Amino acid sequence: MVVVVAKNIIKPGKVEEFLRLTQELIRETRKEKGCIEYSLMRDSERSDILTFIEKWHTEGHLKDHFEAPHFKRIVPMLGDLTQGETEINIYEEL
Amino acid sequence: MVVVVAKNIIKPGKVEEFLRLTQELIRETRKEKGCIEYSLMRDSERSDILTFIEKWHTEGHLKDHFEAPHFKRIVPMLGDLTQGETEINIYEEL
Repeated sequence: MVVVVAKNIIKPGKVEEFLRLTQELIRETRKEKGCIEYSLMRDSERSDILTFIEKWHTEGHLKDHFEAPHFKRIVPMLGDLTQGETEINIYEEL
Repeated sequence: MVVVVAKNIIKPGKVEEFLRLTQELIRETRKEKGCIEYSLMRDSERSDILTFIEKWHTEGHLKDHFEAPHFKRIVPMLGDLTQGETEINIYEEL
Protein backbone atom coordinates (compact mmCIF):
# COMPACT_ATOMS: atom_id res chain seq x y z
CA MET A 1 0.00 0.00 0.00
CA VAL A 2 1.11 3.53 -0.80
CA VAL A 3 -0.10 6.52 1.19
CA VAL A 4 0.01 10.09 -0.09
CA VAL A 5 -0.32 13.25 1.95
CA ALA A 6 -0.63 16.35 -0.22
CA LYS A 7 -0.91 19.49 1.89
CA ASN A 8 -2.07 22.74 0.31
CA ILE A 9 -2.19 26.26 1.68
CA ILE A 10 -4.97 28.05 -0.20
CA LYS A 11 -4.76 31.65 -1.36
CA PRO A 12 -7.03 34.07 0.56
CA GLY A 13 -10.60 33.97 -0.79
CA LYS A 14 -9.97 30.88 -2.93
CA VAL A 15 -11.09 28.11 -0.53
CA GLU A 16 -14.61 27.82 -1.96
CA GLU A 17 -13.31 27.62 -5.53
CA PHE A 18 -10.74 25.03 -4.49
CA LEU A 19 -13.43 22.94 -2.80
CA ARG A 20 -15.72 23.20 -5.82
CA LEU A 21 -12.97 22.02 -8.19
CA THR A 22 -11.99 19.10 -5.97
CA GLN A 23 -15.49 17.60 -5.93
CA GLU A 24 -15.16 16.19 -9.45
CA LEU A 25 -11.53 15.16 -8.85
CA ILE A 26 -12.53 13.20 -5.73
CA ARG A 27 -15.58 11.60 -7.38
CA GLU A 28 -13.62 10.44 -10.44
CA THR A 29 -10.51 9.39 -8.52
CA ARG A 30 -12.47 7.16 -6.18
CA LYS A 31 -13.58 5.19 -9.25
CA GLU A 32 -9.98 4.49 -10.27
CA LYS A 33 -8.48 1.00 -10.01
CA GLY A 34 -6.37 0.57 -6.89
CA CYS A 35 -7.77 3.61 -5.10
CA ILE A 36 -8.38 2.56 -1.49
CA GLU A 37 -8.98 6.03 -0.08
CA TYR A 38 -9.01 9.55 -1.47
CA SER A 39 -10.16 12.17 1.03
CA LEU A 40 -9.85 15.92 1.38
CA MET A 41 -9.23 17.17 4.90
CA ARG A 42 -9.44 20.64 6.41
CA ASP A 43 -7.06 21.64 9.18
CA SER A 44 -9.09 22.11 12.35
CA GLU A 45 -7.28 25.35 13.21
CA ARG A 46 -6.55 26.77 9.78
CA SER A 47 -9.35 26.57 7.20
CA ASP A 48 -6.88 27.62 4.49
CA ILE A 49 -5.00 24.33 4.86
CA LEU A 50 -6.63 21.62 2.74
CA THR A 51 -4.88 18.28 2.48
CA PHE A 52 -5.51 15.19 0.39
CA ILE A 53 -4.91 11.91 2.16
CA GLU A 54 -4.81 9.04 -0.30
CA LYS A 55 -4.26 5.29 -0.15
CA TRP A 56 -3.38 3.23 -3.22
CA HIS A 57 -2.88 -0.51 -3.58
CA THR A 58 0.42 -0.04 -5.42
CA GLU A 59 2.76 2.65 -6.69
CA GLY A 60 1.68 1.63 -10.18
CA HIS A 61 -1.93 2.56 -9.43
CA LEU A 62 -0.76 5.93 -8.13
CA LYS A 63 1.26 6.52 -11.29
CA ASP A 64 -1.80 5.66 -13.40
CA HIS A 65 -3.70 8.25 -11.36
CA PHE A 66 -1.22 10.93 -12.39
CA GLU A 67 -2.09 10.11 -16.03
CA ALA A 68 -5.88 10.12 -15.53
CA PRO A 69 -7.74 12.76 -17.62
CA HIS A 70 -9.51 14.30 -14.62
CA PHE A 71 -6.16 14.56 -12.76
CA LYS A 72 -4.42 16.24 -15.71
CA ARG A 73 -7.31 18.67 -16.21
CA ILE A 74 -8.15 19.63 -12.61
CA VAL A 75 -4.89 19.50 -10.63
CA PRO A 76 -3.22 22.34 -12.58
CA MET A 77 -6.30 24.50 -11.89
CA LEU A 78 -5.96 23.70 -8.17
CA GLY A 79 -2.35 24.78 -8.39
CA ASP A 80 -3.44 28.28 -9.37
CA LEU A 81 -5.35 28.55 -6.07
CA THR A 82 -2.57 27.55 -3.71
CA GLN A 83 0.21 29.52 -2.07
CA GLY A 84 3.59 28.06 -2.94
CA GLU A 85 4.16 24.41 -3.67
CA THR A 86 1.93 21.59 -2.48
CA GLU A 87 3.81 19.68 0.24
CA ILE A 88 3.62 16.11 -1.05
CA ASN A 89 4.88 13.05 0.75
CA ILE A 90 4.50 9.56 -0.69
CA TYR A 91 4.72 7.01 2.08
CA GLU A 92 5.05 3.29 2.61
CA GLU A 93 3.54 1.86 5.78
CA LEU A 94 5.98 0.32 8.26
CA MET B 1 -13.76 11.56 12.71
CA VAL B 2 -10.49 13.35 13.40
CA VAL B 3 -7.37 12.69 11.35
CA VAL B 4 -3.86 13.54 12.54
CA VAL B 5 -0.74 13.76 10.42
CA ALA B 6 2.41 14.12 12.53
CA LYS B 7 5.49 14.41 10.35
CA ASN B 8 8.95 13.94 11.86
CA ILE B 9 12.40 14.48 10.39
CA ILE B 10 14.73 12.14 12.28
CA LYS B 11 18.24 13.09 13.33
CA PRO B 12 21.02 11.27 11.42
CA GLY B 13 21.65 7.80 12.84
CA LYS B 14 18.53 7.86 15.03
CA VAL B 15 15.99 6.16 12.74
CA GLU B 16 16.44 2.69 14.25
CA GLU B 17 16.08 4.01 17.79
CA PHE B 18 12.99 6.02 16.77
CA LEU B 19 11.42 2.93 15.19
CA ARG B 20 12.19 0.80 18.25
CA LEU B 21 10.55 3.34 20.58
CA THR B 22 7.44 3.66 18.41
CA GLN B 23 6.66 -0.05 18.50
CA GLU B 24 5.28 0.08 22.06
CA LEU B 25 3.55 3.42 21.40
CA ILE B 26 1.76 1.98 18.36
CA ARG B 27 0.82 -1.27 20.10
CA GLU B 28 -0.64 0.50 23.16
CA THR B 29 -2.31 3.30 21.19
CA ARG B 30 -4.17 0.88 18.95
CA LYS B 31 -5.83 -0.51 22.11
CA GLU B 32 -7.19 2.92 23.07
CA LYS B 33 -10.88 3.71 22.88
CA GLY B 34 -11.80 5.61 19.71
CA CYS B 35 -8.60 4.77 17.88
CA ILE B 36 -9.57 3.88 14.31
CA GLU B 37 -6.08 3.93 12.84
CA TYR B 38 -2.58 4.61 14.13
CA SER B 39 0.14 3.94 11.59
CA LEU B 40 3.75 4.96 11.13
CA MET B 41 4.77 5.73 7.57
CA ARG B 42 8.20 6.16 5.97
CA ASP B 43 8.65 8.61 3.12
CA SER B 44 9.45 6.63 -0.02
CA GLU B 45 12.25 9.02 -1.00
CA ARG B 46 13.57 10.09 2.38
CA SER B 47 13.99 7.37 5.02
CA ASP B 48 14.58 10.08 7.65
CA ILE B 49 10.98 11.27 7.33
CA LEU B 50 8.68 9.18 9.55
CA THR B 51 5.08 10.25 9.87
CA PHE B 52 2.22 9.10 12.05
CA ILE B 53 -1.16 9.00 10.36
CA GLU B 54 -3.94 8.61 12.87
CA LYS B 55 -7.73 8.42 12.82
CA TRP B 56 -9.86 8.95 15.91
CA HIS B 57 -13.62 8.73 16.35
CA THR B 58 -13.76 12.10 18.10
CA GLU B 59 -11.56 14.94 19.26
CA GLY B 60 -12.28 13.78 22.80
CA HIS B 61 -10.68 10.40 22.11
CA LEU B 62 -7.62 12.18 20.70
CA LYS B 63 -7.37 14.35 23.80
CA ASP B 64 -7.58 11.23 26.00
CA HIS B 65 -4.71 9.82 23.93
CA PHE B 66 -2.53 12.80 24.84
CA GLU B 67 -3.09 11.88 28.52
CA ALA B 68 -2.35 8.15 28.10
CA PRO B 69 0.65 6.92 30.17
CA HIS B 70 2.43 5.40 27.14
CA PHE B 71 2.00 8.67 25.22
CA LYS B 72 3.38 10.78 28.08
CA ARG B 73 6.33 8.43 28.58
CA ILE B 74 7.35 7.70 24.98
CA VAL B 75 6.55 10.82 22.92
CA PRO B 76 9.06 13.06 24.78
CA MET B 77 11.76 10.46 24.08
CA LEU B 78 10.83 10.53 20.39
CA GLY B 79 11.18 14.30 20.50
CA ASP B 80 14.87 13.92 21.41
CA LEU B 81 15.42 12.01 18.15
CA THR B 82 13.85 14.49 15.75
CA GLN B 83 15.19 17.56 14.00
CA GLY B 84 13.13 20.61 14.86
CA GLU B 85 9.45 20.48 15.66
CA THR B 86 7.10 17.69 14.59
CA GLU B 87 4.80 19.12 11.89
CA ILE B 88 1.37 18.26 13.28
CA ASN B 89 -1.92 18.86 11.53
CA ILE B 90 -5.24 17.85 13.05
CA TYR B 91 -7.85 17.51 10.35
CA GLU B 92 -11.56 17.08 9.93
CA GLU B 93 -12.74 15.24 6.81
CA LEU B 94 -14.76 17.28 4.31
